[in-house]
Amino acid sequence: MRSEALPAVAADFNQTERDAIYRVIGARRDVRHGFLPTPLPDALLTRLLQAAHDAPSVGLMQPSRFILIRSLAVRRQIHDVFRQANREALARYQGARRNQYADLKLEGILEAPQNLCVVCDAHSEQGHGLGRQTMPETALYSSVCAIQNLWLAARAEGVGVGWVSILSPEALRSVLRIPAHIVPVAYLCLGYVDVFGTEPELQRVGWQHRSSLESVVFEECYPEIER
Amino acid sequence: MRSEALPAVAADFNQTERDAIYRVIGARRDVRHGFLPTPLPDALLTRLLQAAHDAPSVGLMQPSRFILIRSLAVRRQIHDVFRQANREALARYQGARRNQYADLKLEGILEAPQNLCVVCDAHSEQGHGLGRQTMPETALYSSVCAIQNLWLAARAEGVGVGWVSILSPEALRSVLRIPAHIVPVAYLCLGYVDVFGTEPELQRVGWQHRSSLESVVFEECYPEIER
Repeated sequence: MRSEALPAVAADFNQTERDAIYRVIGARRDVRHGFLPTPLPDALLTRLLQAAHDAPSVGLMQPSRFILIRSLAVRRQIHDVFRQANREALARYQGARRNQYADLKLEGILEAPQNLCVVCDAHSEQGHGLGRQTMPETALYSSVCAIQNLWLAARAEGVGVGWVSILSPEALRSVLRIPAHIVPVAYLCLGYVDVFGTEPELQRVGWQHRSSLESVVFEECYPEIER
Repeated sequence: MRSEALPAVAADFNQTERDAIYRVIGARRDVRHGFLPTPLPDALLTRLLQAAHDAPSVGLMQPSRFILIRSLAVRRQIHDVFRQANREALARYQGARRNQYADLKLEGILEAPQNLCVVCDAHSEQGHGLGRQTMPETALYSSVCAIQNLWLAARAEGVGVGWVSILSPEALRSVLRIPAHIVPVAYLCLGYVDVFGTEPELQRVGWQHRSSLESVVFEECYPEIER
């Protein structure tokens, strides 16, 4: 029944291509270790950044800016920022959970030959404010769409990406000289890896299990009692 | 040179599959008109929602909840919310820009047989707070990653997606009975379309042109003077 009702554009991508898109979505991982020292070729980095830049943005404001970091000296400074934030994070856990947290490897800042800080010019005049008056946070969300595009493209290229959020935004600003009107959205580690996990790292080590799809889909309105 | 240095995982996706992934990223559009009245089959909706649910989330907290709206009565209420916000938005433009804004079609709430409100349980205990202490906004960003996954999968299936941000979040909460501790992230219109534009709608009509990749990529730190 379905096939006869389908519009022609449903054939823009054939079954093999659609399968590849779902497969890359399922196989993408947050990578914290196993980065190889081989630098990514410039042409590959450009493909990944173009994928990010092709993301949707509110009012076509294209607010994302990409700071590519290859300098070991800069990465060392960022790694210090991580270590400070991670010490503070550890202090908030207790007992077995604390021991488990202490054992987690949460970033590959020094191992990954490329780091990428994605920032947002959230007050840019580009797009002439369209769509941003009631929900101005959509400027920031546009940068996140860019990150997800890059993440999927990277997986297809055999490149691991890890998002490090255990960083003080102020310290990040200071190291990368990010001006006050620009918002740091994400700090990513990028590099070739030998292997991608078959499940999320945090599930593999027993930190948190994945929830079912049924438990997060509701009909018509938010339920009074969640499933 | 590149091929001999590549790790084995780079072959997880062959050239045809990689091309499909880049192509879907480039061909994805924000769709505001041309939705067909044919409802999306349940199996397809499930594939799209699973793609969203497979997105990365900080500390594997999986904070996204998906409210699928098919009721015309509910969509009419949301459409009223849009019209109010859009009147207020129009009032902020003047002259030729105002006339151009008034001519824009910015949503397909009533035409698209499915609407989807993506909300975030930003204080969920799932994930045990990992990665959220210095940058708590990453909970919301996790929901945006989910949206971008869904958007790409939809494009590959011939399904248009339009993100409507011209809505009062409070009015949205009221119509969809979203509790105070849950954050509305996005309101999407979903449906089959006959055609996808070859360029962003806002570029086609001359509202805003796309910027170059070179103008948004920096090396090592944020530049003192932007390109």
